Amino acid sequence: MWTLPSSDIVLHWLSLIALTAQAMTAALAAGRRSMDWAGVAMLGCITALGGGTIRDVLLGHYPLAWVQNPWLLALTAVAAFLTILIAQAVHRLNTAFLVLDAIGLVIFTMIGCDVAWQMNASLPIVIVAGMITGCAGGVLRDILCNDVPLLFRSELYASVSVVTGLFYSVSFGLKVNQELWTVLTFLLGLSFRLLAIRYRWEMPKFVFDENKR
Amino acid sequence: MWTLPSSDIVLHWLSLIALTAQAMTAALAAGRRSMDWAGVAMLGCITALGGGTIRDVLLGHYPLAWVQNPWLLALTAVAAFLTILIAQAVHRLNTAFLVLDAIGLVIFTMIGCDVAWQMNASLPIVIVAGMITGCAGGVLRDILCNDVPLLFRSELYASVSVVTGLFYSVSFGLKVNQELWTVLTFLLGLSFRLLAIRYRWEMPKFVFDENKR
Amino acid sequence: MWTLPSSDIVLHWLSLIALTAQAMTAALAAGRRSMDWAGVAMLGCITALGGGTIRDVLLGHYPLAWVQNPWLLALTAVAAFLTILIAQAVHRLNTAFLVLDAIGLVIFTMIGCDVAWQMNASLPIVIVAGMITGCAGGVLRDILCNDVPLLFRSELYASVSVVTGLFYSVSFGLKVNQELWTVLTFLLGLSFRLLAIRYRWEMPKFVFDENKR
Repeated sequence: MWTLPSSDIVLHWLSLIALTAQAMTAALAAGRRSMDWAGVAMLGCITALGGGTIRDVLLGHYPLAWVQNPWLLALTAVAAFLTILIAQAVHRLNTAFLVLDAIGLVIFTMIGCDVAWQMNASLPIVIVAGMITGCAGGVLRDILCNDVPLLFRSELYASVSVVTGLFYSVSFGLKVNQELWTVLTFLLGLSFRLLAIRYRWEMPKFVFDENKR
Repeated sequence: MWTLPSSDIVLHWLSLIALTAQAMTAALAAGRRSMDWAGVAMLGCITALGGGTIRDVLLGHYPLAWVQNPWLLALTAVAAFLTILIAQAVHRLNTAFLVLDAIGLVIFTMIGCDVAWQMNASLPIVIVAGMITGCAGGVLRDILCNDVPLLFRSELYASVSVVTGLFYSVSFGLKVNQELWTVLTFLLGLSFRLLAIRYRWEMPKFVFDENKR
Repeated sequence: MWTLPSSDIVLHWLSLIALTAQAMTAALAAGRRSMDWAGVAMLGCITALGGGTIRDVLLGHYPLAWVQNPWLLALTAVAAFLTILIAQAVHRLNTAFLVLDAIGLVIFTMIGCDVAWQMNASLPIVIVAGMITGCAGGVLRDILCNDVPLLFRSELYASVSVVTGLFYSVSFGLKVNQELWTVLTFLLGLSFRLLAIRYRWEMPKFVFDENKR
């Protein structure tokens, strides 16, 4: 007999890889601001774990994941720290990290939806919880680096999260094969994000200048 | 017979109008930073609903208003989005929006005081809760737009909120006509803010430059 | 007979002095950004009380300290406000304030560890709670002043907090004289921080510039 790994275990490992990847790209952002080693490690933790933290604080969902599993702090801090040694390699592997970040966006979105759903939140809140989990870490990173959040002006990111969350939550309450649906959602969300990067799909921008009419 | 609408219903509608107005002015701020459509909608939601959210998180008052009534997210996101189409008109109606924003400041302050009072908070916390509800959304907007919060340096705004909250809470525990008192507070706070805008009443500024003595 | 004041009472008074000192240095930061008097008072409160607030929100530890003791808000707001009158003196007393700030860092760290320990948090979370209590207020100050947080790039600060927390928590669960240990931790943490300032001990910086190799 031959058994596939349950999608849950795969998701768990993918989410750890994605946490690591987000901590590492946050470390590069820290390096652009000449932060010191402690700052790099902290920015890595905050970026990778911040989305889930904000979701849990807003939903009143205690204890937080990293309070229950403090090794998540160690994982992300060490990942950020190691990035200092291999910064040029990480930078050259830009494409690989974009893929890992996309995996994180999709998986964190699904995890966020699951958490809100288990708290009996309504469908819109399930989707918002997914979006916050997937996107808010990057917003914290940009605020701490004193930038206008990229989320608000770059390629489709929040939109990918919303579409992923919508598609994923449609199955809640339906009698579908949950494992199959998870895989489908993952593939859909990931393809959407990678296509958005590849073809530079962007939302139209709203440029307002009060001096012109 | 002819009945006045109860002040509660009027307050409810005024607060929805104020939420809309705050989302629309946040959209203009987003446009000044060339955010994309999704960013505009998100900044609208965060600005309009952020004050109440911070108050509830600080007081441990769950669930949050927009978690219970997700249509508030839709209202503010749509209001911000529509602003893209009518930006010049919104900008020209600057005065009207200042009035609507002032209405929001006063009403959100009263709502914040009510919430804290119902949680049996002490008088100073009731007033602080009012101030956070009225003012913190704009601080979030300015942080996300990478500005030093206007709240900390422009015309009387937080002070209007404090005066409104003080006047409003004086009646708590007294046997006054609550409805009349609400109307009085509303008129007092609104006049104060509008006079402050009209006559450019400002707090003195504290300008510190370490190089001069 | 002659009795030493219990270390708890001494800690309590030192923590009030440290709150005051942090509010006063925050006021100078507000003055550098030309904030108005209300902004100065608010920035003082947020800086001095923000670290404990973030810790409590993340741990779900309600009610917050300043909600229970609103006079803490008055203390820090008044301290910040008075700084406006004596800004040049405060600036000249720079060294004294660095010492007071160091006292605050160490004491707030110990208080944070205590709170988390009483909530039965694991050792890593005890130390993180100490670090957040000691450091996060300054991060909020820098975000509101639109700076990249000093914490992430200046002399040893977070590291002092971590070392203090580690040393302090080692005693938890051990049968040591708790009072003696508190004094020892205090002296260790304070000396570490003051030496770091005096000899400009810094973490190595991670400077990443994608255009160079």
